[in-house]
Amino acid sequence: MTTTGTDLLATHRERLDDASKAIRGRGYHSAFPESPSPRVYGETAAADGKAAFERYLGTTFPLETPGSRGTVITEHSPFGIPLDIAYPRTVEDGLDELLEAARSGMADWRKAGIDARTGVTLEILARLHKRVFELANAVQHTSGQAFVMAFQAGGAHALDRALEAVAYAYEEMNRYPAAATWEKPAKGNPIRMEKTFTVTGRGVALVIGCNTFPTWNSWPGLFASLVTGNAVVVKPHPLAVLPLAITVEVCREVLAEAGFDPNLVTLAAERAGDGLAKPLATRPEVKLIDFTGGSEFGEWLEQNATQATVFTEKAGVNAVIVDSTDAFKALCGNLAFTLSLYSGQMCTTTQNLFVPAGGIETDEGHKSFEEVGAGIAGAMGKLLGDDARAVEILGGIVNQAVISRLELAPEYGDVVLESRAIQHPAFPDALVRTPLLVAIDAKDEEVYGRECFGPVSFLVKTADTAESIDLFRTTVTEGGAMTAGIYSTDPKTLEQARDAALDAGVALSENLTGQVFVNQSAAFSDFHGTGANPAANATYTDGAYVASRFRVIQSRRHV
Amino acid sequence: MTTTGTDLLATHRERLDDASKAIRGRGYHSAFPESPSPRVYGETAAADGKAAFERYLGTTFPLETPGSRGTVITEHSPFGIPLDIAYPRTVEDGLDELLEAARSGMADWRKAGIDARTGVTLEILARLHKRVFELANAVQHTSGQAFVMAFQAGGAHALDRALEAVAYAYEEMNRYPAAATWEKPAKGNPIRMEKTFTVTGRGVALVIGCNTFPTWNSWPGLFASLVTGNAVVVKPHPLAVLPLAITVEVCREVLAEAGFDPNLVTLAAERAGDGLAKPLATRPEVKLIDFTGGSEFGEWLEQNATQATVFTEKAGVNAVIVDSTDAFKALCGNLAFTLSLYSGQMCTTTQNLFVPAGGIETDEGHKSFEEVGAGIAGAMGKLLGDDARAVEILGGIVNQAVISRLELAPEYGDVVLESRAIQHPAFPDALVRTPLLVAIDAKDEEVYGRECFGPVSFLVKTADTAESIDLFRTTVTEGGAMTAGIYSTDPKTLEQARDAALDAGVALSENLTGQVFVNQSAAFSDFHGTGANPAANATYTDGAYVASRFRVIQSRRHV
Repeated sequence: MTTTGTDLLATHRERLDDASKAIRGRGYHSAFPESPSPRVYGETAAADGKAAFERYLGTTFPLETPGSRGTVITEHSPFGIPLDIAYPRTVEDGLDELLEAARSGMADWRKAGIDARTGVTLEILARLHKRVFELANAVQHTSGQAFVMAFQAGGAHALDRALEAVAYAYEEMNRYPAAATWEKPAKGNPIRMEKTFTVTGRGVALVIGCNTFPTWNSWPGLFASLVTGNAVVVKPHPLAVLPLAITVEVCREVLAEAGFDPNLVTLAAERAGDGLAKPLATRPEVKLIDFTGGSEFGEWLEQNATQATVFTEKAGVNAVIVDSTDAFKALCGNLAFTLSLYSGQMCTTTQNLFVPAGGIETDEGHKSFEEVGAGIAGAMGKLLGDDARAVEILGGIVNQAVISRLELAPEYGDVVLESRAIQHPAFPDALVRTPLLVAIDAKDEEVYGRECFGPVSFLVKTADTAESIDLFRTTVTEGGAMTAGIYSTDPKTLEQARDAALDAGVALSENLTGQVFVNQSAAFSDFHGTGANPAANATYTDGAYVASRFRVIQSRRHV
Repeated sequence: MTTTGTDLLATHRERLDDASKAIRGRGYHSAFPESPSPRVYGETAAADGKAAFERYLGTTFPLETPGSRGTVITEHSPFGIPLDIAYPRTVEDGLDELLEAARSGMADWRKAGIDARTGVTLEILARLHKRVFELANAVQHTSGQAFVMAFQAGGAHALDRALEAVAYAYEEMNRYPAAATWEKPAKGNPIRMEKTFTVTGRGVALVIGCNTFPTWNSWPGLFASLVTGNAVVVKPHPLAVLPLAITVEVCREVLAEAGFDPNLVTLAAERAGDGLAKPLATRPEVKLIDFTGGSEFGEWLEQNATQATVFTEKAGVNAVIVDSTDAFKALCGNLAFTLSLYSGQMCTTTQNLFVPAGGIETDEGHKSFEEVGAGIAGAMGKLLGDDARAVEILGGIVNQAVISRLELAPEYGDVVLESRAIQHPAFPDALVRTPLLVAIDAKDEEVYGRECFGPVSFLVKTADTAESIDLFRTTVTEGGAMTAGIYSTDPKTLEQARDAALDAGVALSENLTGQVFVNQSAAFSDFHGTGANPAANATYTDGAYVASRFRVIQSRRHV
C-alpha cells in the first residue's frame, strides 16, 4: 500500500505548523538540531554518515538522468582527499529529453494538490535529515567547510531554511480557497456561480548550485519550486556535486514511493567548462531559476533568461562601520570570528571595516585607527593560534581562484595582519589559509568597492563616522551587500546607520559582541539578503520568494 | 491640523477589512456601487460629473510635472467631440529631474509606515469615487466605451480592482511583524536579540497606461506600488490621458494634504511618437513596471527592462469551445453580448469559437456548424438591431488601426455576419461598428492563432470537439489568452476542457448562458489573467502581484 502525500502531511503536520507560526512571529525557531553530538543524534550516527560518504568515493553515483551521455568526474576536495565520483553527464544535446522527462509528471503533481505535494516535500526533508551526517561529509569535502560548520550550515541550518521556504509556499498557496460560491444580488434571483481554484506550477524550475554552500543555497529554491507544483532540474557546481546528487536521490526516492514521477527532480551534472547553464537557463520550458554565484553570471541570467522568473544571490561588499564601543575586546573577538569562519568564504563575510582615521572611543579609552586594527588582528591571532583548533574554524580554501586573489591583496594597502598557510593535522593536502587584513585609504574605492571573495578584508580609513556612513551607503548601493554592521554607543549615529541601511537596502546588525555574528542569519527570523541591493534580487524567505513560483487557474460555472 | 495617514486608515478601516475578507473567500463583493442611477449617486451627480469633464475641454490640465517642457495635446475622442486638453509634456531630457523629484519623498513615505500609506491610498480611492461621473466621461471620450460601461468598468469596477490590489498589498506587508524578540536557548544565559523589520519600496514604479481601459488597467498597479512605499510615474497612452491626469491630480492632492511630497505620483504625458516609454522603462531608478498594451512592446519590456520587475498584460487569442448545450438560445445570446460589448475591443473578448464541422447537439435538436453560426449571428442582429440601443453596447471604435484590421478580416474566410457602420444618434462623428463573424478552417491557424484586436471573431471549423480542445490548448499555449469558455453537456468533455485550461494556464468559464459573460471578471473573486500563458505575466490580483513591490529590511541588536 502506498503512503500518500496527504498521509505524509499528517505525519509532518506539527513540524509545518510550528514553522508557519515561526515565520509569522520571527522569534527563535529550529526544527533540526544543530549539534552533531552523539547525545542528540546517537552514538553511531557520525561514523555511519562518514562511512556512507566514503562508500561513494571512486564509484558511479546511483542516479539516472534522462538525456545524459556517459558520466563525468569533476570534484576535488579542498581537504585534498581523492573523490573520483562519477555522475551522469548532461549535455546540450540531451536537454530535449531531459526537459520532456521533467515535464511529464507535472500534471499528476498538480492534480495531487497542495497537501499531498507539501507532505511529499516534508518527507524529503525528513529523509535528508536522517542522512545529515552523510550530507555533512559531502558538504565538507566539496565546499571546504570544516566538519561542524558543514553539519550545521550544510545540514541542520539548510534543512531549517528549506522548511522555512516550504512553510512560506504552503501559506502562499493557501491564500486562495480551493472553491468558492459567488452570489451577486440581482433583481429577481441572485446570480450564483461555483468557482474552482487550482494551484499550478510554472513549468521547469532550474536550480544552479554554488561551490561554497551547495545545500544551504540550493534547497530553499529547490523545495519552494517543487512544493508549488514545478519540476526541478538541479545543476550543481562542478566542484560540489555530491551534496546535490544525494539530495536529488532522496527526492526521487520519496516521489516514487508516493506514486509520482521521479523525474520531477533531476540532476544535471556537467563537465567544468561545458557551459550547460546558459542553454539550459534560456530554454522556453524553464520558468523559474534559482542561482547562487558570481555577479557576472547572475546578471547574465537576469538579463537573458527573461522567459523565467530569476532569483539570484550574487556578490557584494559587506561592510561594518566602527564608530565607538563599550566593549572593545568583545568587538574585536566578534569580528575576528566573523572574518575567520570558513576563511571568509561566506557571501556574508565582512569585507570592509570603516574606521575613522582619528580612531574611536571605547571602554578602554581612545583607540587610534592603528590600535583598532591591532585589536582585531590580535583577536584573530589568538583565535587561530592553535593550528588544530584553527582548521576547525577556517576549513579549506574552496578553489585556486581564492588563493590567487589572496596573493594579490597585500598590494592594495598596508598589511595589518598577514595571511598564513596552516598544515591541516588530519588532511595533509588540505589548502588552509588564515585571513588577511589590509588597511586602505577611503579614496581607494575602486579596490574595496568591489568584491574580493575569500579571506581578505579591508580596514578602510575614513575621515570620520559621517564619511564611514556615506561610503557604506554608496558602496552598498552600487556594489551590493548581503550583510552590514555598526558598532556605536551613540543613539544618533545608530539611527543614521539604520537610515543608511534602509536607503541602501541591507540588513543591519548593531553592536554584536557576543555569540551572534554579522555573517550568520537565523532561519525563520533573519532574512538572508534583502533583494533590495545589487547583491541579491531575492531573500530567504519572504512572500516574494514563493509567490511567483505558481499561478492560480480558476474555472467557474453557474449553480 | 493635518489629518494623518493613520487617521485616514481609521476612516476607511471597514472598507479595507471587508475587502481583505473578500479576497480570502473570493465570494461576491463590491465596495463601489456599479449603478450610475440617481437613486444611488444623487440627482445631480451625473450632470455635475459631465460638467466637470466639459470644463477641461480646450484648457490646460492643472497639473505640474517636474522636468516637463511645455505642454502637449494628443487625445481624440472616438465619439468625435473635440477635446483639446493640454498636459505638461515630459521629454527624455527631463527624466533626470522627474525621477529625482519622484524619489525625493520616498524616505518620508517609507517612514510613515504601512498604516499611514494604506490610509492615504484608501483616501485617494474615496476621492476618486467622489469624482466617478467625471472619470466616466473622461474614460468614455478617450476609450470609446459607452457611458454606462465607462462608469462601471472605468469607474466602479476599476475602484474595486484598485481596492483589491491595496487589500492584497496590505495583507502582504503585514505578513512580517514590525518587531520581534529572538531568544536562542544556550548554556548559561539565552541569547536575546531585538529585531526591527521595515517595509521599503523598491524605487520608482512606472505605470504605462493603455487606450481602451486607462483606469481599470492602470489603477491596480499604481496603487499596489504606491501603498508599498514606491513613487509612481504614470505614463498614459497619448490617446487616453485625461482619466489618468485626474487620477494623478487626486493622488497629489491627498498626498500633500497628509503631509507627503506630491511628487510621489506624477504624470508623464508625451507626444505620440516621442517613444518616451523605452528610455523611461530602462532607467536604473525604475524598479517596477506595470504595462498594458500590445505584445510587441510588452515583450520588449520583459526582455529589456531587466533592472525592474515587470508586470505585463498583452495580447491573446481568447477562445470558446462549443461542444453541446441544453440552452442553445441562451448560448447564442450570451456569446452575442460578449462579442458586441465595446465592439469586441476588450482584451477579454472571445476571438475564436471552436465548433465541430458536424455541428452540435442542443436542446433544440442537432445544429449544424452553419446553424450554430447563424444562431450567434441572429442573436447579435437582435441585440444590435436598434441603433440607439446598439451604440450603448458597442461604444465607439478606439482608433483607426482597429478599422484597418476590421476591413481586412472578411478575406480570411466565409463571412457569417457582416460588420456594419452605425450612425450614433448623439455623436454624429463617432466611429461605430458592429462585430464581424468569419467562419474559418481549423487548418488556418496562422490567421486565428494570432490576435486580431477589435470587432472580429472567428468561427473555427474543427473535425470534432477533441480537435477543438487540442487547438484551444495549442493556440492558448502559444498565443496566450485572457479568457476561455466551454459549452458542453458532457461531464467528461468538461473535465477534458478543464485539464486543457490548466495545462494552457487560462481561466475557464463553463456554460455561461445568463448574465455572466466570459469577457467579464469580478473583482475580489475572479482573477483577471493568470500569468501562466503568453497573454500576461501577472494577474489581478494574487500574492505575486504585490509581493515583489517592496522588500523587508531588518536591523537587530542584543537586549
